[in-house]
Amino acid sequence: MTQTGSTLSTQLAEAAQPASGAALIALDWGTTSLRAYLFDANGAVLETRASTAGIMNLPRPAAEGGFDAAFDAAVGAWLDRSPELPVIAAGMVGSAQGWKEAPYVNTPASADALVDGIVRVQTARGVPLNIVPGVLQNGELPNVMRGEETQIFGALACADASGAAASAASNGVLIGLPGTHAKWVMVRDAKIERFHTFMTGEVFAALTEHTILGRTMVTPDRPDTDAFLRGVRVARDKGQAGVLATIFSTRTLGLTAQLTREQQPDYLSGLLIGHELSGLEAALAQQQSTLAGRSLQLIGNEALCERYRLALEQFGCHQAELVRHATEHGLWRIAAQAGLVAEASGAAQTT
Amino acid sequence: MTQTGSTLSTQLAEAAQPASGAALIALDWGTTSLRAYLFDANGAVLETRASTAGIMNLPRPAAEGGFDAAFDAAVGAWLDRSPELPVIAAGMVGSAQGWKEAPYVNTPASADALVDGIVRVQTARGVPLNIVPGVLQNGELPNVMRGEETQIFGALACADASGAAASAASNGVLIGLPGTHAKWVMVRDAKIERFHTFMTGEVFAALTEHTILGRTMVTPDRPDTDAFLRGVRVARDKGQAGVLATIFSTRTLGLTAQLTREQQPDYLSGLLIGHELSGLEAALAQQQSTLAGRSLQLIGNEALCERYRLALEQFGCHQAELVRHATEHGLWRIAAQAGLVAEASGAAQTT
Repeated sequence: MTQTGSTLSTQLAEAAQPASGAALIALDWGTTSLRAYLFDANGAVLETRASTAGIMNLPRPAAEGGFDAAFDAAVGAWLDRSPELPVIAAGMVGSAQGWKEAPYVNTPASADALVDGIVRVQTARGVPLNIVPGVLQNGELPNVMRGEETQIFGALACADASGAAASAASNGVLIGLPGTHAKWVMVRDAKIERFHTFMTGEVFAALTEHTILGRTMVTPDRPDTDAFLRGVRVARDKGQAGVLATIFSTRTLGLTAQLTREQQPDYLSGLLIGHELSGLEAALAQQQSTLAGRSLQLIGNEALCERYRLALEQFGCHQAELVRHATEHGLWRIAAQAGLVAEASGAAQTT
Repeated sequence: MTQTGSTLSTQLAEAAQPASGAALIALDWGTTSLRAYLFDANGAVLETRASTAGIMNLPRPAAEGGFDAAFDAAVGAWLDRSPELPVIAAGMVGSAQGWKEAPYVNTPASADALVDGIVRVQTARGVPLNIVPGVLQNGELPNVMRGEETQIFGALACADASGAAASAASNGVLIGLPGTHAKWVMVRDAKIERFHTFMTGEVFAALTEHTILGRTMVTPDRPDTDAFLRGVRVARDKGQAGVLATIFSTRTLGLTAQLTREQQPDYLSGLLIGHELSGLEAALAQQQSTLAGRSLQLIGNEALCERYRLALEQFGCHQAELVRHATEHGLWRIAAQAGLVAEASGAAQTT
C-alpha cells in the first residue's frame, strides 16, 4: 500500500486518479465519526472523506433510514461513478446499536476468523455493505473491541511486508492503541490472543470537565512535558494507593503552590497514563513478561502516541514504534482476504 | 453530649428548651451545604437548622455580603434571642474560597493545634465567627482536609468518654470517612498523623453521569448487595490492572448478559470502593499494617457507611463501628477546648 501521508486529511489524494481506477470502498465507522477510503486495485488510497456521522450521530434516526443517509452522504458520489465497487466497513457500525450486528469473534482471533464473521447488510441503493466483526475475550472480566481488530491486522500486514515481525510472531507482539478507551493487545501466531481496555481518555475528560479537579485547571498554550512526566513518575513510584487517591494530588499540589493551573492538565494526563502503564505492567507480570526492554507498536493519534512513547520510556521501554495508516492497511487486507478485491501481491504494499 | 437521634434532621430537638438555655452555636459549613447546631451548656443539641447555602452556593455573591446573608438566614433567629452566644464553624468556610482563610495546621495535628489555629471573622451583626482550620499533610503527594478534622476529634471524644480507645490510642486508630472525597485517617497519641484521600464518590458520579458506563445503567429500586459485593471482590482479586481497566467490565458484563442494567450501578460502586480499600491496604502494608482483623471507625452517611462495612468484611475487617454525630461532638469539643464554652464534665457527654 502506498502511504498517502498528509493527504489523508484532505478530500483528494496526492495523485488523484480517475474513479475508473477504483477497486474498493472502505469505511471506518465509529461512534462519533465516519471515515471513508477509496482504494485502487493496488491498495493505494485515491480519495478519502470524513464526516461526523458516527452511529450515535446520524443525520436522522436509524429507524428513518439514518444509516443509509450517512452512507450515501459519505460514499454516494463514488458509487454513482462506479456502482459495482465492493464496500467494507469496520467499527461500531457492526455493534448492537449499529446498522446490523456482526457478532463478536472470540479470542484467539485470526484474520481468517474475522473474514468468516463478516455480516452483510443491503443498502437502500442496492449495494451490499460487508461489516467486519469485533473481537470478544470472554471470562470473568470480558473485553471487547470493534475497529481496533482491523487496525491490528493492518499493523501486522505492514510488519509482515517489511519482514520486521517475522521473529516476533512466535514470541508475541504487543500493540497499544491509545485513545478514549485505550487497548493493549497481545498478538501471537497472527492471532489476537488477549487484550486489556483502559478507559483512560474518557476518564480524563470526565475528571477535567465534571469534577473539582477541572475547576483549578487552565489549558496551557502547548503541552507541558515536564508536568506530564512528573505525573507518570508519581503513578509509577507513588501510585500504590491507586488512581482514585493520586488524582487528588492534582488539586493539593496546586493548593500548596507546587503545580500551576496550566501544569495541572498535563500532570493529570501523566498520572492516568502512568497508572495505565503500571496496570499493564502488572498484567504482563502475570505472564512472566514486562515492558522494560520490549519493543512494541503504537496505533493512533500521532501526538497522543508521542505522549505514550515518552511515558513508556519511564517504564524502560524505548522501542515504541508508531504504525501509520493501520486502519487503511487493515481494511484493505481484510477485504482482500475476503475476496472482495484481488490481492495485488500477497501482502499489502508498503513504501 | 446527649445523642439527639432522629431529631437531628428536624428543626427542633426532642426536648426543646428555651433559647435562654443556649450556650453555643456551631456550624458545619461545607461547599454545598450549611448545617447549624444550637447547644445547651451541657453540650446537648437543642435545635438544628440545615440549608443549601454552602460556600459555592451562597444566596448572593461573597463580595455582596453573601456569607453574612447565609449566616443570618441560618442562625440569625438564635442570635436575636441570645446575642452574646459564641459561634464556631468548621469546613470549607475556612478555605481560600471561604469567608476567611484559616491556614492549614500541619500533621501530626492535635486538637490543641486546631484550637491555636482558629481564625476569627467579624460578622455584619457584630458577632465574631471562630473558624476551625483544616489539616495539611505535606510531602510529594500532599493531602488536605477541612471539616473532617473536627469530626475526627468528635469521634475520639466519644471513644475517650466510653474508654474504648484508651488502649488503641498508642497503637493508632484508623478512621474512615466515606463520601465524595473519602478520607482514611490514622490517629496516634491523639494526633492526626497521616491520611489519604480517595475521590471515590465524585469519580462514581462522573463515571455514571458523563461516560459510556452510565448509558446502559438503570437505577434499581433498592441497592443490589450481591452486585455490589461482586464488584468489591473483582477489585480485590482481579484488580491488578487497576481501576481504569476494571471499570470497563461494567459495560462488557452487560454486553455479555452477565450483569443486568439494574445491577450495573451497584457493581460499579463495589468496584470503586473495592479499589479504594485495596489502595488503602497497600498503603497500610507500607506501615507493616493491614485491614484484616483490625477494628476501625466509620463516620458519615449511615447507608454509605453500611456499604463500606460490607466491603471491609471482604478484606477481613469485621469490626467497623459507625460513629454517630461526630460533627456535633467535634464542634462542641473544640469550642470547649478553645474556652468558648465552659466544659461541662471534662469530655463531651455520651449517652
